Amino acid sequence: MSGRWALAIHGGAGTILRSKMTPDKEAAYHDGLRRALAAGVTVLRNGGAALDAVTEAVVALEDEPLFNAGRGAVYTSAGEQEMDAAVMDGRNRQAGAVAGIFGPRNPVRVARLVLDRPQVLIAGAPAVDLARQAGLPFGDRAYFHTEARWTALQETLAGRTDDDPARRHGTVGAVAVDAHGNLAAATSTGGMTGKAPGRIGDTPIIGGGTFADNATCAVSGTGHGEVFIRWTAAAEIAARMRHAGQTLDQAATAVVMEDLAPNDGTGGLVAVDRHGNIAMPFNCEGMYRGMVRQGEEAKTLIYR
Amino acid sequence: MSGRWALAIHGGAGTILRSKMTPDKEAAYHDGLRRALAAGVTVLRNGGAALDAVTEAVVALEDEPLFNAGRGAVYTSAGEQEMDAAVMDGRNRQAGAVAGIFGPRNPVRVARLVLDRPQVLIAGAPAVDLARQAGLPFGDRAYFHTEARWTALQETLAGRTDDDPARRHGTVGAVAVDAHGNLAAATSTGGMTGKAPGRIGDTPIIGGGTFADNATCAVSGTGHGEVFIRWTAAAEIAARMRHAGQTLDQAATAVVMEDLAPNDGTGGLVAVDRHGNIAMPFNCEGMYRGMVRQGEEAKTLIYR
Repeated sequence: MSGRWALAIHGGAGTILRSKMTPDKEAAYHDGLRRALAAGVTVLRNGGAALDAVTEAVVALEDEPLFNAGRGAVYTSAGEQEMDAAVMDGRNRQAGAVAGIFGPRNPVRVARLVLDRPQVLIAGAPAVDLARQAGLPFGDRAYFHTEARWTALQETLAGRTDDDPARRHGTVGAVAVDAHGNLAAATSTGGMTGKAPGRIGDTPIIGGGTFADNATCAVSGTGHGEVFIRWTAAAEIAARMRHAGQTLDQAATAVVMEDLAPNDGTGGLVAVDRHGNIAMPFNCEGMYRGMVRQGEEAKTLIYR
Repeated sequence: MSGRWALAIHGGAGTILRSKMTPDKEAAYHDGLRRALAAGVTVLRNGGAALDAVTEAVVALEDEPLFNAGRGAVYTSAGEQEMDAAVMDGRNRQAGAVAGIFGPRNPVRVARLVLDRPQVLIAGAPAVDLARQAGLPFGDRAYFHTEARWTALQETLAGRTDDDPARRHGTVGAVAVDAHGNLAAATSTGGMTGKAPGRIGDTPIIGGGTFADNATCAVSGTGHGEVFIRWTAAAEIAARMRHAGQTLDQAATAVVMEDLAPNDGTGGLVAVDRHGNIAMPFNCEGMYRGMVRQGEEAKTLIYR
C-alpha cells in the first residue's frame, strides 16, 4: 500500500497565558514547532519509516530549550532533572521507553535503543549506560540548564504557580503514518517542575501517554500524567476505534473531553490513523502543536 | 448495594514441570495460596474494602518465599533484587505503584502508600524513603535471600534455563469485589531471574499487569511482562467489556489466548467483575491460583 503520509507534533498543553506571551516568544514557539515538523518530513518525504520520522521530530523538540524535554527539561523538587521518553512502532507494537534518566541529550534516542531490545521500559542508570555504550551524545548540567526552568522551580517551591503549566508539566511528542501505511508514536518529557524525585508520569507508559498500532492509531499525550495513566488514555483511543467502531476524531475527542477532563486530567494529545487523519484535541487553553500532510502546507498552532 | 464478595489470587504462571514437582512441594504451594486467600477473606467477610483485601492477600504471598515477590524475589543479572508492585481501587481508579525497590518487606504496602499521594508510579530510592517514613517493616539481604533463587540465577547466567519459568519470572496478585460492589487489584513481583537491572515489567504498569474499575473488572496479570505491556492486557479486558459488550470470561480469555499467546505472551491472569464472576485464563502449562466466593469453599489450583 502506498498512502499519504502525515505527521502531527505537540510541545505541551495547558493554560498558556496570552498575558505572558510576547510576539517574539510566540514566534520562537512556532519556529521550534516548524523545525520539528521539518525534521520529520525529511524522513517521510523520502519514503522513510514513521518510526524514524517521529524520532527525528522529537529529537528536534528535545534540542529546543523552549519545550520541557531534553535540553530545557524542568527541575524536580530536589533540583535535579529526570527525563522520560518512549517510542512505539505500529507495525508490530514493539516499544521502548526510559524513565528517570539524566545525561543523554536525546532521551527519545535511548528509548529507541530499548525498542530493539527484549525489554520495554528501563529506568535510571542502566538506561544511561545503554546510551553510553551506543555512543549517543551526552550533555552536562550546563547543557541542560535553562534559567527559566530554574526560576520556575524556585517559584513552585515558594508556592507561586503562575508559571505556564504547559511548560511546568509539558511534554513533547510526535505521531506519524508513513507512505507504507505504518504508524508510530514518540513522546519525551522532563516531567513536572518540582515533582517528587522518582515520579514517573505517563510519557513512558505504553497505553498511557504513548501508543501505536497499525490497526488503529498512533497517539502521544501531554498533560496531567497521572490521570492519563489511570484512564489508559492512549490505549483507550485505540480500543474505542477497534471495539466501538469510532473514528479517530470521535475516539480522541471522547477520551480528552469525557474521560480526562472531568477527572482533573488537564491536557491534550495528537493522534493519527493509517488514512492520514489527524486529531489534536485538548481540554485547556492551548497546546503547542503542528501538523503536516503530504501535499499540504505545514501548520503550527498554540491557541484554539 | 450488598452483593456477594469474591476473591481470586495467583502466584505465577508458566511451564510448571510436573517432573520437578514433589507431593511435598505441591502441598506447600497449595498452603501458601490458601493462606493468602484466608488473609483476603478475613477482610471481605467483615465487610471490608476490596482494596484492603487484595493488599492483605498479596502481603501473604510476598511473605511466602515460594513465590517470586517480596521474600523470595529473584535476582537480577547483577545479583541484586529489584521489586515492583501496584494496587488500584476500582471506585475511583486511584492507583499506586512502585518500581525497582529493595528493602521494604512488602512492596505492595509501598504501592498502597503511593495510591494516597498525587503520584501514580514512583521508582527507586524515593519510594523506599516513603516506606521508611511510614514506618513499614524492612528486610535485609538475609531476609530476602533464598537459596533456590540464587541457584536459579547461576543457572540462568550459565545458560541453563530448566528452572520453572513460573518462578523465574513469576508474579503474585489478587483481585476482589467486596460486599459493597467495589473492585480492586494488586500485583507484586521480583521481576525476572537474570533480568537487566533497571528493567520494569508490567506489574506496576496500570493497564498492563494491573487494572481495576468498578464499571468493568479488576485484573492482575503474570507472565511475559513486555507483551502484557505492548498489548495493554489488563486495560484491554475492561475495554472489551465496555465497548464490545463482552462478558468478563469472554474478554479475559480473548486477551490471554488471542492477543498474548500468538505474540509470545506466555502467562495468565486473574480477573473479577462486580457480580462476583471470576476468570483465571492462562496459556501455559499451569498457574498457581486460588479463588473463593461468599458462601463457597476456597479452591486452589496449579495445573488445568
